[in-house]
Amino acid sequence: MNMETKTSTRGGDLHAALFNPRSVALVGASDDATKTAGRPQQYLSRAQFSGAVYPINPNRATVQGHKAYPSLSDLPEVPEHVFVLSPTSSVLPVVEECGRLGVKVVTILASGFSESGKEGAALEAKVRDAARRGGVRLVGPSSIGVVNPRNGLVLTANAAFADPNLPKGGLLVASHSGSMIGALVSRGIARGVGFAGLVSVGSETELSLGEICAASLDDDGIDGYLLFLESLHHGDTIKQFAAEAARRGKPVLAYKLGRSDAAAEMAATHTGALAGEDDIADALLKDCGVARVGVLDALLEAAPLARRIPLRKWKRAPRVGVVTTTGGGAAMAVDQLGIRDVTVQAPSPETLQRLREKGIHVSPGRVVDLTLAGVKYEVMKAALDVLLEAPEFDLVLATIGSSARFQPQLAVKPIVDSSHHTTPLAAMMVPDAPEALAALTAAGVPCFRGPEACADAIASVFARRIPGTLTLPAQPAGSASSLSEAAAYAVLDELGVPHAPAVTAPLSGSAPALPFDFPVVAKVCSAQIQHKTEVGGVVLGIKSTDELRQAMITLRTNLRTRAPGVACDEFLVQPMRKGLTEVLVGYKIDVAAGPIVMLAAGGIWAEITRDRSIRLAPVSVETAREMISEVKALKTVSGLRGKERGDLEALARAVSSLSQLALRPELGIHEAEVNPLMVMPEGQGVMAVDALVLQGK
Amino acid sequence: MNMETKTSTRGGDLHAALFNPRSVALVGASDDATKTAGRPQQYLSRAQFSGAVYPINPNRATVQGHKAYPSLSDLPEVPEHVFVLSPTSSVLPVVEECGRLGVKVVTILASGFSESGKEGAALEAKVRDAARRGGVRLVGPSSIGVVNPRNGLVLTANAAFADPNLPKGGLLVASHSGSMIGALVSRGIARGVGFAGLVSVGSETELSLGEICAASLDDDGIDGYLLFLESLHHGDTIKQFAAEAARRGKPVLAYKLGRSDAAAEMAATHTGALAGEDDIADALLKDCGVARVGVLDALLEAAPLARRIPLRKWKRAPRVGVVTTTGGGAAMAVDQLGIRDVTVQAPSPETLQRLREKGIHVSPGRVVDLTLAGVKYEVMKAALDVLLEAPEFDLVLATIGSSARFQPQLAVKPIVDSSHHTTPLAAMMVPDAPEALAALTAAGVPCFRGPEACADAIASVFARRIPGTLTLPAQPAGSASSLSEAAAYAVLDELGVPHAPAVTAPLSGSAPALPFDFPVVAKVCSAQIQHKTEVGGVVLGIKSTDELRQAMITLRTNLRTRAPGVACDEFLVQPMRKGLTEVLVGYKIDVAAGPIVMLAAGGIWAEITRDRSIRLAPVSVETAREMISEVKALKTVSGLRGKERGDLEALARAVSSLSQLALRPELGIHEAEVNPLMVMPEGQGVMAVDALVLQGK
Repeated sequence: MNMETKTSTRGGDLHAALFNPRSVALVGASDDATKTAGRPQQYLSRAQFSGAVYPINPNRATVQGHKAYPSLSDLPEVPEHVFVLSPTSSVLPVVEECGRLGVKVVTILASGFSESGKEGAALEAKVRDAARRGGVRLVGPSSIGVVNPRNGLVLTANAAFADPNLPKGGLLVASHSGSMIGALVSRGIARGVGFAGLVSVGSETELSLGEICAASLDDDGIDGYLLFLESLHHGDTIKQFAAEAARRGKPVLAYKLGRSDAAAEMAATHTGALAGEDDIADALLKDCGVARVGVLDALLEAAPLARRIPLRKWKRAPRVGVVTTTGGGAAMAVDQLGIRDVTVQAPSPETLQRLREKGIHVSPGRVVDLTLAGVKYEVMKAALDVLLEAPEFDLVLATIGSSARFQPQLAVKPIVDSSHHTTPLAAMMVPDAPEALAALTAAGVPCFRGPEACADAIASVFARRIPGTLTLPAQPAGSASSLSEAAAYAVLDELGVPHAPAVTAPLSGSAPALPFDFPVVAKVCSAQIQHKTEVGGVVLGIKSTDELRQAMITLRTNLRTRAPGVACDEFLVQPMRKGLTEVLVGYKIDVAAGPIVMLAAGGIWAEITRDRSIRLAPVSVETAREMISEVKALKTVSGLRGKERGDLEALARAVSSLSQLALRPELGIHEAEVNPLMVMPEGQGVMAVDALVLQGK
Repeated sequence: MNMETKTSTRGGDLHAALFNPRSVALVGASDDATKTAGRPQQYLSRAQFSGAVYPINPNRATVQGHKAYPSLSDLPEVPEHVFVLSPTSSVLPVVEECGRLGVKVVTILASGFSESGKEGAALEAKVRDAARRGGVRLVGPSSIGVVNPRNGLVLTANAAFADPNLPKGGLLVASHSGSMIGALVSRGIARGVGFAGLVSVGSETELSLGEICAASLDDDGIDGYLLFLESLHHGDTIKQFAAEAARRGKPVLAYKLGRSDAAAEMAATHTGALAGEDDIADALLKDCGVARVGVLDALLEAAPLARRIPLRKWKRAPRVGVVTTTGGGAAMAVDQLGIRDVTVQAPSPETLQRLREKGIHVSPGRVVDLTLAGVKYEVMKAALDVLLEAPEFDLVLATIGSSARFQPQLAVKPIVDSSHHTTPLAAMMVPDAPEALAALTAAGVPCFRGPEACADAIASVFARRIPGTLTLPAQPAGSASSLSEAAAYAVLDELGVPHAPAVTAPLSGSAPALPFDFPVVAKVCSAQIQHKTEVGGVVLGIKSTDELRQAMITLRTNLRTRAPGVACDEFLVQPMRKGLTEVLVGYKIDVAAGPIVMLAAGGIWAEITRDRSIRLAPVSVETAREMISEVKALKTVSGLRGKERGDLEALARAVSSLSQLALRPELGIHEAEVNPLMVMPEGQGVMAVDALVLQGK
């Protein structure tokens, strides 16, 4: 598209116009402060916003006691940020006007665009084009607004912001759901958690969530990000932003909907966006260093923990030491950690000895249970100092019982006083203990009010991975078509993914000589036939040249009757090979996540159990080994209970090799699925016995 | 054992002595109210307990300003309930003294009994025997005490009870963990949830948790139970209590530790009790009508919901309708319901039409999203009334966004006003909204402060099952030994569980005539050989009488060399049969749960995925069908994607038949494991091809 466009506001300028504008205009501001269109002006006034506020209302001289202007063009200055509160139909002319005037950012409240159907989508496209032509950056449509508690910018229609005392802090919230920015701020107040900004990104027609966050990275007042995601729309910008945030040590936490099919479907109807597969989103978030929490409270509570635990490559599973004043309370945390596959590590004999030297005698077990003795400052402090110096823990978690409520000076104060060790220290309160939590939060100690959020936060922070190759070459796009099996094998050869030997020959000729022994399988070979069995295009168990001749006749007959008119001149012969087990290895350019690689259990099991592991491509052999450990079905060939071990090293190499397609755009491959890949006994490799490759035209 | 015993206090008398004693004595009461042994007296005094309180301390004339007595025998009356705060070594003489005096209940704080080793276990046995001889009922040891907020009985050393304003209500808490009664009461205060009593049952050496709860069933002030379980110790009494509570319509909610292996192991070391397998406990709880929650908050929040949803047989999966003012907030609930397999039901076309007639136009979708329009009393009220009259919902859940916080009169009041319909109505608050929650709680409307507890409560309340056969005959006990495969088949014949035809013959004789065709399998047949393959006792694929003869020689040789001295004169011949899939069907008398039946995926898969379903035995064919639907591996033979369907009806009959062992104690069977049971194609039945049966001696 070749359109006249102005230079758009980017980076720090964009961030300033969004969250720290010198002036804002409210288009369609209502004089009635109880109405949605009346709220922003009331909130800005209550919060004593430091910039200028201009209500735009052609029907009134004043709005809520302030001079109103008939239009943006009538204002004494060009506002930096315009919030459009007027109906859907008015949005396009306002954006056009903003473009003419040189407004930097426009936030649009109205809905009724692409999520409402064809007409809405057409209107949305026009609004976007107008914005691009005018160099205007858009938040929304369907954005409930933008808030910055630091300067009183309560530029929102969300009813939850009626309270002018917004908690200031270092977290920036970016949310697909407008309602959730209010919900999170209210839940933050209840926890003493403060915010550096909150933005409802709406349907991201122009500015995406990732771009808005990326623009804020230079803001020193922001020390972490909370994302509330309904889908992985614009995953590319989330990827870029999260990787850069990881590089700068600013933790990113995400709560993403769509773990269940019902919610995924709902996100699709609610936003008009395709939700995508949740485990692809999960892979993307983790691969970009994002801690994806599964419990809402953890979104608010995990940031201090994420700041304390470095984003790094764990050579082994991370290990948590637990110290407690109450066995039952600690067991809740241990249980929740256990079901999330986090290792709770028992203290070593050396550590127990050091505890004894301090006069602390604990029963052997996974948890250091101080019982009632732990409700003494000296005992808890000494125990924490020993555990935090012990080499076997990557994190120490203190779970505190009833004393946390009425006597925090006994068991909670030592936590604050011991939080300076290199090993991070976190705390979970077993009773309701608001004062203890406030003291811990004020001291920057990660603390939790329930076992689920505690374990979820720990598991998700440890599950973050260091972002890998970010600067991939441009990937093939456009339409693609399938290759024949023989051509697919040529691609595998290029990548170094082993496959069973194969001979192709004309179907109408004589039986070919074979460089391998019988029995063999004969398959039709055509770019036009993706599902060979459906046309009777596979003959198994061929034991002689005679039978091979017969098979060729069968294939020709089946093609004539079941696939008339389909071009297929060749067939392919392979030896019959059976592995210890079979898997599916797939590569594709996902619309949201970009190139991904997948390893899945083979056959019907994969469909029933969704037993698979996904990563952003490309992956190293080491990462492929991790993927193998995540596929349950592969435990059957991991040497368990004396069963024969499969060649999992060869499998890891094959997964890594296929994933290198992400670095080979010149091959034009959109998708490659090796299914099945036979896993042979250890030392005998792996072998593709079928493959489907889609190549760009 | 033949000992002189007094009649123990039971039922209502026991409950009165526990929770409403006319007088209590505190053995070992400390004058220092900050010490553990000083707390109960201080708490009783602060809470203005209505009965008499006698401190026992031989070293002081007064304790905390009250006259102290040197011993229980010196008291002016026999106290009904004695709380022993003195050390472990003093407990036995106190209990003996209580027996002599006729004290009804003794609660023991000290630990150091069976959980500490052999000596402690011996002491515990002596204490228990002394109690039985004296007709004294014991709570503990390791009990932090008993609390009744209704009469000021704060008979506990738990620091969380320092606040004298305990919330009164209808819930009785019984907990294995002493710390948790304090944690739950503090969390109850934060939620406006009140209690009729709380008891820390300790190590249950005499009175079990189930007995304590059962004794309270006639207390009209109790309208529900919260159990905090570390293990399923004394599952029999929990079973009896829960079934009776279900009969009386008093809901029982349980939070049980041990879902992860780490926590199960911890419960074992912490309490000295074997934790047992968590899914057996899960089956017992659900089969007894207990709602087992998995989120701690749900334990406190689910009772009103459990009261509103009848414990009944669902003919189909229960269906929840969701109405909301915020799409993002509702999606959190939908997601959490979805991952717990609760169906979120879209409104029917008729219901949408009725909504339109009320002027409510919603986008098609799973959730009735009223958007900002729902933040009007009339709109929300009308929508709720339509949904609550619609036949497609078993529960309606309203999720309320930001207005819940500042304008509860708009979207929350209609929930209170519509809660009278037959269909139950629940509410979830998306923001922090304490006032709205208080209003809903006061009105008895089930309400939740987060999506996880909300969905967990709904799923666990719907998952309760109506208690089945409770009056099982006495089960075989003592030691048991295994039967030969042939004898095991005779037991299956008796029960009507099909097995492959089998011929037994002397190993030293000639090859037997077979009533079935080759190929066959030959197996050694002896009560002394449980694992036949380990001794080379199985020969597969025998195709002729000659090969059968050869197999007999092989078996004899293998027995001689690999199982010398083992008695084995017979062998067993079966036709080789292959099913569509194989499963394991097991029956056993579990130490905690009693007779149970299990259906599991066959082979190595079962071990890797723990893909199994468990119920209390016996089960009907209908219940066996439910079990089949719970085993994922059986989806491969359920007719999915054109794959051949297995004879799942025959499987259901076999599961039910094996479970009837619970009603056949005369057979003396302790355990029966059919593994594998071949599932043949539809109409061709199922067939055991091996079985291991343990029979009492």
